[in-house]
Amino acid sequence: MAKRINLNADIAEGWGAYNIGNDAELMTIIKSANVACGFHAGDANTMHRLCGMAKENGVSIGAHPGFNDLWGFGRRRIHMKPVDLEYMVAYQIGALQAMAQYAGLKVTHLKPHGALNNMAAEDADYAMAIGRAIKTVDPSIVYVALYGSEMQRAAETLGLPLAREGFVDRMYDDDGNLASRALSGTVLKDAETAAKQTVRMVTEGEILSMNGKVVKVEVDTLCVHGDEPTAVAVARTARAALEQAGVAIVPLTEMELPGR
Amino acid sequence: MAKRINLNADIAEGWGAYNIGNDAELMTIIKSANVACGFHAGDANTMHRLCGMAKENGVSIGAHPGFNDLWGFGRRRIHMKPVDLEYMVAYQIGALQAMAQYAGLKVTHLKPHGALNNMAAEDADYAMAIGRAIKTVDPSIVYVALYGSEMQRAAETLGLPLAREGFVDRMYDDDGNLASRALSGTVLKDAETAAKQTVRMVTEGEILSMNGKVVKVEVDTLCVHGDEPTAVAVARTARAALEQAGVAIVPLTEMELPGR
Amino acid sequence: MAKRINLNADIAEGWGAYNIGNDAELMTIIKSANVACGFHAGDANTMHRLCGMAKENGVSIGAHPGFNDLWGFGRRRIHMKPVDLEYMVAYQIGALQAMAQYAGLKVTHLKPHGALNNMAAEDADYAMAIGRAIKTVDPSIVYVALYGSEMQRAAETLGLPLAREGFVDRMYDDDGNLASRALSGTVLKDAETAAKQTVRMVTEGEILSMNGKVVKVEVDTLCVHGDEPTAVAVARTARAALEQAGVAIVPLTEMELPGR
Amino acid sequence: MAKRINLNADIAEGWGAYNIGNDAELMTIIKSANVACGFHAGDANTMHRLCGMAKENGVSIGAHPGFNDLWGFGRRRIHMKPVDLEYMVAYQIGALQAMAQYAGLKVTHLKPHGALNNMAAEDADYAMAIGRAIKTVDPSIVYVALYGSEMQRAAETLGLPLAREGFVDRMYDDDGNLASRALSGTVLKDAETAAKQTVRMVTEGEILSMNGKVVKVEVDTLCVHGDEPTAVAVARTARAALEQAGVAIVPLTEMELPGR
Repeated sequence: MAKRINLNADIAEGWGAYNIGNDAELMTIIKSANVACGFHAGDANTMHRLCGMAKENGVSIGAHPGFNDLWGFGRRRIHMKPVDLEYMVAYQIGALQAMAQYAGLKVTHLKPHGALNNMAAEDADYAMAIGRAIKTVDPSIVYVALYGSEMQRAAETLGLPLAREGFVDRMYDDDGNLASRALSGTVLKDAETAAKQTVRMVTEGEILSMNGKVVKVEVDTLCVHGDEPTAVAVARTARAALEQAGVAIVPLTEMELPGR
Repeated sequence: MAKRINLNADIAEGWGAYNIGNDAELMTIIKSANVACGFHAGDANTMHRLCGMAKENGVSIGAHPGFNDLWGFGRRRIHMKPVDLEYMVAYQIGALQAMAQYAGLKVTHLKPHGALNNMAAEDADYAMAIGRAIKTVDPSIVYVALYGSEMQRAAETLGLPLAREGFVDRMYDDDGNLASRALSGTVLKDAETAAKQTVRMVTEGEILSMNGKVVKVEVDTLCVHGDEPTAVAVARTARAALEQAGVAIVPLTEMELPGR
Repeated sequence: MAKRINLNADIAEGWGAYNIGNDAELMTIIKSANVACGFHAGDANTMHRLCGMAKENGVSIGAHPGFNDLWGFGRRRIHMKPVDLEYMVAYQIGALQAMAQYAGLKVTHLKPHGALNNMAAEDADYAMAIGRAIKTVDPSIVYVALYGSEMQRAAETLGLPLAREGFVDRMYDDDGNLASRALSGTVLKDAETAAKQTVRMVTEGEILSMNGKVVKVEVDTLCVHGDEPTAVAVARTARAALEQAGVAIVPLTEMELPGR
Repeated sequence: MAKRINLNADIAEGWGAYNIGNDAELMTIIKSANVACGFHAGDANTMHRLCGMAKENGVSIGAHPGFNDLWGFGRRRIHMKPVDLEYMVAYQIGALQAMAQYAGLKVTHLKPHGALNNMAAEDADYAMAIGRAIKTVDPSIVYVALYGSEMQRAAETLGLPLAREGFVDRMYDDDGNLASRALSGTVLKDAETAAKQTVRMVTEGEILSMNGKVVKVEVDTLCVHGDEPTAVAVARTARAALEQAGVAIVPLTEMELPGR
C-alpha cells in the first residue's frame, strides 16, 4: 500500500458581514479542514457553507476551537481555568456537529486554533482540558497535535486517536521541535526547499534540522497555510512533490493513526 | 392511565461572572428545562451545570435558543433572514447536545426564547426556520410551541413531534389565544385562580376566556416562570392542584405527543 | 460665494482582524467621514487610523453610531427602548471623541448607521433619542438627517445644527422621499444620469421624481457609497460634475447649516 | 489642615439584564468611584446610572477600563500589543466622558480593572500604554497606581497626576509590595486589624510588614472591595477609624497629588 499523508488547513474564518482567508483555493489542496466554530472566528453561516464545500471536495472536517476572543481572532494568549476551557471546547465541537448534519458529514478531528494551539502545545493542563472535551463529546474524534507536544501526550494519556502534525513550511531544531519563528530563515518561503523537506519527512520519517542534524519525526498530517500567496504556492508544490514520490494525500478518516 | 402534563421553565440564564434566575427552586417544580444556549444568555459552564442538575432531578432538557443578543437578553425583536436564523438555531442545539453528554442526557425538546418565541409564534417564516433546524439536527426533538401558533403549524407541516404549550398564569381570549399582557388582569397573580384554570385546562381541555366563554384548548406542557416570588408561588400551587386532581407531572419524554 | 455641498461616506468599518470597505479611495472623494464606533463595526484601532487619515485629507469626522449588533453589521432592525438607544449613542460619540484626540480633531457631525438610520428616519422616538444624545454630549455636533425624515424634525425640535441629506445614486418619489430600493431602477447605476440629478439637486434645489415630476428638495450633504465599483464610479463622476458646475465640495464644518 | 485620604471602589459592573455588586452601599463609604466602561463589564445604562449616583453622593468618578473580555469579567490575563491596549483604554475613557455629561461631571481619574491592573502593575509596556491613553485623551486625569508599581513609574515618566494606591484589607511584604493573596492570612478579614493598619498607613506613612518590619509607604487612595459582606464591614470600620483619627475622607479631586 502506498504511503499516505494528510494535509490540513484552517478554514471558514469569516464572521457576520466579514470575510477573510482563501477557502476555495485551500479546498483544492487539503484533505481535512479545520473549521472555526464561532468563538475566535466563524459563525453558523460560515460553518454551514464550509461543510457543504467539504462534502463536494471530499475533505473531512474537524472542529477548530479557539479562545472566546473574536476581536483578537484567537491569537491572544489568555489565561483561564482549564475546566472552563474544556467546556468551551466541548460547546464548539457540538456546534459544528450540528452544522455538519446539513452536509451529512461527521466531525472527525479537532485542532485547536492560534494562541490556544500554541499554549496547549506547551501546557499539559490546557492540552488535557481539550482532550477531555473530545473524550466526552465523541471519543472517536482525532486529536490533531503538534508532533512531540503536550497535546500528543494528552491524546496518548486519554487514549484518543491522534494525528501528529508537522509543517510544510517550517524548519525544525535538533530535538524535532519547530524552530522559533523569531529566528531568521525558519519559515521556508522557497517552494522547492519546503517540498524536499516535506517529502523526506513523510517518506523517510526524518528531517534535517536547522543545524544540519538528521532528526527522526513521525507525522500523520501536515499543516498548510493559506494567508499569503507564497504559503499557497509552497503548499501546492509540496503536495505535488509528495504525489510524485508516490504518497497518497488522504483525509484523516483514511489514515492509520495511533490510538485508533 | 392517569392524565399527564408537563411543566417547563427557562433556566441556566447566567453568563460568565453574571448570575440570574432561580434555577435550584424551579428544578423542584418543573419536569423539563429550557436551557439557554449561549446566544441570548447561558454559556458552556451554565449549560454544564444545568445538565447535571437536570440529571439529578429527573428533568428532561431542551434547547432554548435565542437571538444573538446577549445585551438585550434575547428580549429585543430582531429582524433577520430566516435562513440565518435557522443556522443560528441549529448551532445552539448542537452546542447543548455536546454539553448534555457530560450528564449522559439527550436534548429532547426545543423552545425558542423571549422575542424569538414571540415572533415565531406569529411569523410563519421564523417558525419554519426553527423547525427546519430541528429537523436537520435531530428530528426526534420535540418542538414546544404556543398552542395555536405558527410554531404549532410549522411542527405539523414538518412532521415534528409537538408539545402544545399553555400558561399557568395567563388569561385567554375567546379564540384560545393568550390575552395581551398589556390588558389589565391578564396575568394571574392569585395562586388559587391560576390553579383552578390550570386544572380545568389539563383535565377538561377547556378554559374560561376573559369574557367568560368556555373555550377548547389542548396543551401538553405548561410554562412556569421563575422571575418573581409570586410566579413561583403560583407555579407551586398549580402543580399541587394538578397532582391533587390526579394528574401526573412528567418530563416531555414521557408524554404522548402529536407527531411522535 | 460659490454654492457649496458636502459629500459624506461610511468609513472605518473593519473590526479586529477583519477588514472591509474601501477607506483609502473614499477619502479622496468625500469631505466628511462617518466613523463606525465599535457597536455595529469599527474598533479603537480603526477609529484611530481613520482619524489620522481624515486629518491628512482635510476630511471632517462624525460619529456613525449603530445598534449593538456586530454580527448583523448594524443592518438588522432591532426594537429597543429609546432611552437605552440614547445612552448607547452617547457612549459611541464619546468613544470617538477620545480617539479623535489622537489626530487633534473634533467630532463635528453624527449620522446613524444602517438599520438605525432607516428606523430613525421613520420613528420619532428613535430620532429624538439620537438627538438627545447629541444634545447632552456636544450640542454643536451636526445631526445628519435624511431630508424630510423624522431625524430632521428631531434636530429642528431640539435646536441642533442639521445637515439634510440627499443621495447621489437614488431616485426620489413625488413627495421628495427616497423611492424604495425594492422598486426596479431606483438605484442609479449610470454615472451620467446620477451626476445630472446631483447637479440639479444641488444647484437648483429640485429633482425629477421617478414619475417625472419636478420636486423641491434641500440638501446640505450627499451620501456616497463605497461598497461596489459602480458606486465609487458614480460618486467620482457626480463629484466632478458638481465641481464643473462651480459647486465647492467642502467639509460639514464649512457648510452654512440650519440650526447653527 | 487635616490629613486627607481618598477611598475608591470598583462600581457599575452590571451589563444588559445582568446585575452584580453592591453599588448603593459602596457609594456611602467611598469618595471616588471606578466606573466600568463596557469592555469587561458595564454598559451605557450602568454608566449613566452610576454617574447620577456619584453626583448625588459627592463622589468623583474615574474610568475603570478593562480588557475586552466580558465573559471573563476582565479577570483573565490577556497578552496583546501595548498600542492596541492603549487605544482600547482611550476609547473607554471617552465613552465614560460622554456618559458623565449626563450628570454634569468630569472623569477625573483612571484605574485599570482586574487582570489589566495586575499586569500593568508589573509590566512597563502595559503601564505606559495606559498612561499614554490618559495623556492623549485628558492629561489632567489622575492615574491611580498601586504604590511602587510600574504604573506609578509610568505616571511619573509621563508627568501625569498620580494617586498611589494602598489596600485596606491586605498585608504587605518587607519591600512595601502587596503580599501575595496565595499566602494564608494576607487578606485581612478582621475589621479592627485592618483599621489599625489603615490608620497607621495614612497618618504615619508606614505599615508593619507580614514579617513584622516597619516599612514606609505613601498612599493617596485606598482601595475598598464590595464583593463580600466582610469586605464591606472592613471598609466601614477602616473609614470610621480614619475619621476618628482626624483624617478627612475626600474625593481624588480634593487631594494634593504628585504630578498635579
